[in-house]
Amino acid sequence: MSDVSSSQVEVTPTYSTIGQPQASSVIGQILALANRPEVISFAGGLPSPEGFPVKAIKDASNWTLDNEALTALQYSGAAGVNSLRTAIAAYETRSGVPTSPDEVIIVSGSQQALDLVARAFVDPQAKILVERPTYLGALLAFKLTQPTFVDMESDDEGLNPDTIGEEARGARFAYVMPTFQNPSGRTISEERRQKLADKAREYDFWLIEDNPYGELYYGEKPPRSLRSFAPERTLRLGTMSKVLAPGLRLGYICGPKHVLQTLLQMKTNMDLHTSTYTQLLTARVINQGKLDEHLPNVRQLYRTKAQVMLESLERFMPQRDDVSWTHPTGGMFIWLNLPQGVDSSDLLRRVLASDVPVGFVPGEAFYSANPEVNHCRLSFVTVPSQKIRDGVASLAKALNALLEERGL
Amino acid sequence: MSDVSSSQVEVTPTYSTIGQPQASSVIGQILALANRPEVISFAGGLPSPEGFPVKAIKDASNWTLDNEALTALQYSGAAGVNSLRTAIAAYETRSGVPTSPDEVIIVSGSQQALDLVARAFVDPQAKILVERPTYLGALLAFKLTQPTFVDMESDDEGLNPDTIGEEARGARFAYVMPTFQNPSGRTISEERRQKLADKAREYDFWLIEDNPYGELYYGEKPPRSLRSFAPERTLRLGTMSKVLAPGLRLGYICGPKHVLQTLLQMKTNMDLHTSTYTQLLTARVINQGKLDEHLPNVRQLYRTKAQVMLESLERFMPQRDDVSWTHPTGGMFIWLNLPQGVDSSDLLRRVLASDVPVGFVPGEAFYSANPEVNHCRLSFVTVPSQKIRDGVASLAKALNALLEERGL
Repeated sequence: MSDVSSSQVEVTPTYSTIGQPQASSVIGQILALANRPEVISFAGGLPSPEGFPVKAIKDASNWTLDNEALTALQYSGAAGVNSLRTAIAAYETRSGVPTSPDEVIIVSGSQQALDLVARAFVDPQAKILVERPTYLGALLAFKLTQPTFVDMESDDEGLNPDTIGEEARGARFAYVMPTFQNPSGRTISEERRQKLADKAREYDFWLIEDNPYGELYYGEKPPRSLRSFAPERTLRLGTMSKVLAPGLRLGYICGPKHVLQTLLQMKTNMDLHTSTYTQLLTARVINQGKLDEHLPNVRQLYRTKAQVMLESLERFMPQRDDVSWTHPTGGMFIWLNLPQGVDSSDLLRRVLASDVPVGFVPGEAFYSANPEVNHCRLSFVTVPSQKIRDGVASLAKALNALLEERGL
Repeated sequence: MSDVSSSQVEVTPTYSTIGQPQASSVIGQILALANRPEVISFAGGLPSPEGFPVKAIKDASNWTLDNEALTALQYSGAAGVNSLRTAIAAYETRSGVPTSPDEVIIVSGSQQALDLVARAFVDPQAKILVERPTYLGALLAFKLTQPTFVDMESDDEGLNPDTIGEEARGARFAYVMPTFQNPSGRTISEERRQKLADKAREYDFWLIEDNPYGELYYGEKPPRSLRSFAPERTLRLGTMSKVLAPGLRLGYICGPKHVLQTLLQMKTNMDLHTSTYTQLLTARVINQGKLDEHLPNVRQLYRTKAQVMLESLERFMPQRDDVSWTHPTGGMFIWLNLPQGVDSSDLLRRVLASDVPVGFVPGEAFYSANPEVNHCRLSFVTVPSQKIRDGVASLAKALNALLEERGL
């Protein structure tokens, strides 16, 4: 029935400034890389499917459709369903700040929280503060609002708030992942959290505390939330993706009610609300105690795999001061530091072409500008232990060859 | 643990231009109105929960978690899962344009499609064309990109493309709901669809065809898609909200692959992807033939209720030329025209205060500017038949009183 001749004509629309076609995105390349079956991939940020509580989710789905189907399948309010907001408020209260359900809104994964917060706070050219390095997905979300990025420096203990000065004044917010950071795996101390809160008050900026990994601690619980040091000017982002299942697309934002009310106006216009069904079934999982039962398994799984990767790095990597790596106490990532003069993209190309091909994300992806190129982000959570050993051995071999070739 | 004194200080962030706190939104007021239990509400745009195929969804949920849980619960590609894209491509092919799965992307409800398309196409001050009247939710989504709205005129047969002229040149797109329009209930003819496509080519704008209600026909199938008249420059939006269940939050965009690829970059940065779980279970519902089995029930339900409302309007409304209403052949809405000089907001206030309080949406909400205030949007789908009769009778009584009072 269609006018075939015209359907074969390609008509290019006029795209907006932020809508221009891009060369294939770094995230896209990562996902392509992670999916090639012959590659031992340390590239992914995907949680291990071994950690999905399928039975608990199935029971909760059935309960929801047996008991509250007409609610679950209908439109619902932009803020999210009460049962889930209540469960999250209780969790946030345990994390350091007494929180009521109306200080929580539900979003479609924490990526949407990043987009929503940026759109609500940032005009083109407005300043926002980000860590060096910082989470790639946040940079990509924030770029849609055309901000001016101002970097905050890190050292071996993570973000160093002492380096924040006058250039921070007028920033709309500082985006920070204080616990088990993506990509570095680092956690900042309570002392640094306090100093960062003090800087936020001194220079009058808000804090966006992203906390996707806080529950994935291997031993000791991490320090109390950054939010607890400046609750009047912090929005804390959380997600079910790492503790339960990313396929549900559930995240949340926690903070002062007056700000959440303003964010909700925009959320309504963006997608009305997040799936009622996945919200209700997730509330059921949590309220039946299934998340609390499940989390120790995930922690144990990730602890074991982190340990295997740390031992493998110790065993295979060249023993020299300028090759080092972080020792995370939770989360999904290790940050590998290479000698100055080594570009991790060169290492990636070499190891992907080797007998035992290995994928990882080159560190340069995690900087707003002026990237440090001598780092690799390594993730271990979806890789079987023996493959972790084989992959690290292959990576070390490629690195040694590269260093030798360059006389480094 | 928190610093209580500081948590009680209210700190106002610097919001972006589009993030400024608004007075309570019209949509918010509508939802509040629709929820007061004593009101007979013709205000909602919610589908009837009588029409939710709960058993089919439950069976599909269980099948999905039994057979593909690790996929359903994991991250997935931004474009959507193949099984759902394939099912939708087959539907779009039946609607008039041969469509392959890679000419379909899945989004989180068609509200997200509106937001995504606007962000990808519209810079501040850029022109976009909208109908008079048009869908309120689209206006709200589009406003986030700060466009210049250019109105297209309608008459009793809906959008009149003959009125589109030189002012349309340079518009990024025309947003059109050609079938069972929200709010008017009107459907434009094939002749008008062809003319609109011709105008789009003449003045070089794209067409955004929103089709939430096309399957909800009462008798004859509606005309073939607007997309079929200009497939090279149309994006067609669809949703599962009206045919299956809005709580799943599933919509889609169908159109030229090169444009969808560009939209996907932005979708990735907005929320990574739509829930894998709800996508897979919905594909299962469709592929098991359960949607095709279910749709005749919804059509029958809505046909019956539309008939009751039309009969009630005929019976109770004052018989004069300047009181009229549309006679939709599908969808969820009737558009009631009042005499010049009557503001439907006044009628709403009066009928809400009457013995039989009735809610509806005043027509002024559906204009980008210079609203016509003498219209009411009436929805019948969630109201029992006797209440439809009682509500229309009460509305007519309030209208008669208002007309008498004003000597109209």
